[in-house]
Amino acid sequence: MRILHHLPLCPYSRKVRLVLGERQLAVELRAEKTWERRPEYLQLNPAGLVPTLIDENGRAVPDSSVICEYLEEAYNSETGEGTLLGTSLADRVEARRLVAWFDGSFAAAVTMNFVIEKYLKRISGRGQPDAQALRLAYASLREHLAYIGWLAGSRSFLAGEMLSLADLAAAAHVSVLDFLGEIDWAQFPEVREWYARIKSRRSFRPLLNDRVPGMTPPDHYVDLDF
Amino acid sequence: MRILHHLPLCPYSRKVRLVLGERQLAVELRAEKTWERRPEYLQLNPAGLVPTLIDENGRAVPDSSVICEYLEEAYNSETGEGTLLGTSLADRVEARRLVAWFDGSFAAAVTMNFVIEKYLKRISGRGQPDAQALRLAYASLREHLAYIGWLAGSRSFLAGEMLSLADLAAAAHVSVLDFLGEIDWAQFPEVREWYARIKSRRSFRPLLNDRVPGMTPPDHYVDLDF
Repeated sequence: MRILHHLPLCPYSRKVRLVLGERQLAVELRAEKTWERRPEYLQLNPAGLVPTLIDENGRAVPDSSVICEYLEEAYNSETGEGTLLGTSLADRVEARRLVAWFDGSFAAAVTMNFVIEKYLKRISGRGQPDAQALRLAYASLREHLAYIGWLAGSRSFLAGEMLSLADLAAAAHVSVLDFLGEIDWAQFPEVREWYARIKSRRSFRPLLNDRVPGMTPPDHYVDLDF
Repeated sequence: MRILHHLPLCPYSRKVRLVLGERQLAVELRAEKTWERRPEYLQLNPAGLVPTLIDENGRAVPDSSVICEYLEEAYNSETGEGTLLGTSLADRVEARRLVAWFDGSFAAAVTMNFVIEKYLKRISGRGQPDAQALRLAYASLREHLAYIGWLAGSRSFLAGEMLSLADLAAAAHVSVLDFLGEIDWAQFPEVREWYARIKSRRSFRPLLNDRVPGMTPPDHYVDLDF
């Protein structure tokens, strides 16, 4: 059985779960407490981060971007069918550009700040959220959601006319922020319309069932018609 | 003419320059002061970071990881000749894993701390280097160089028996640290032997000629037999 070492509120793990779901590749999830730095896990992934995929053949594939490229190469048909990056060079540049933006700039300015301040500090007993860090993160969140809204308003999907890895990376980040109750949906109708479409996909269902000890997502988190 | 918007001490820009050099693709370099956030540049790369490649056909390709994947797809022969990732799935996972490690963990714990404290603070007039940040960065540097040494000691190149993108990404980071005079080569003979081989390649030559106003690299920076 394929195994994914992950954490429930990690946007990179969520992206890989969505990709596996879209490809209909079954996977067993194992939560990895990365902060314990288990020697057996460091053997699989020397960086010590989640996610790491152990494919059915036993191959360990660490890092979400490496996993997504690996799945493209290992599981698409020879004609490229099944691709989540698109078939033309231009489509692939645009999909990868947006994935890099979500997993880089968006993560650093928005997602990881909320995850650290609202979740990791709590579970590790490292004190209260830092009000100044959260203020900056809220300002960035609005700016970054406005950019998603602009993309969603001018294209069928974020990178173009087809669902791509960009939508799955974006939805992974947005889903973490939504779980934490940080998104004021009334302010971002175009993001909401796009996210409702992604959230309704079968691949998304397992993410809606995630629960984290001591935290309750807002009621609309699981609602497909929020 | 192909154009690369870059910065001389940016390890991501240096990686792309090495890749272009290995592929013998000529390029005109343009330094982009990203902190000025020029509107024309933000059109090319909404993230506002370097590097961005403008290929001969006029296509803008932002982000070093996107550029490297693009060059693999646009410029390898149909049989995969020219690849810097390798031909087997296992080789490609290992090369990409190491690139992700250098551009992620290594950059965050080591390179970017030195670049910020020793270079960006100076050119932007943002005060003196933070001694505590530098102390942590030196400890990380030793730990991370030891891992490169272990790889270099057990394989011909970092990801295996062939030169790959992993060597170029690693050499880009190491070259920035060496420019800043941070590496005590006597302590890391295996890293030194590997780096001397990469540094002797024709693709590396332009990097050795980089100069930055107000900073002088140590004499051994340009020496191929340091």
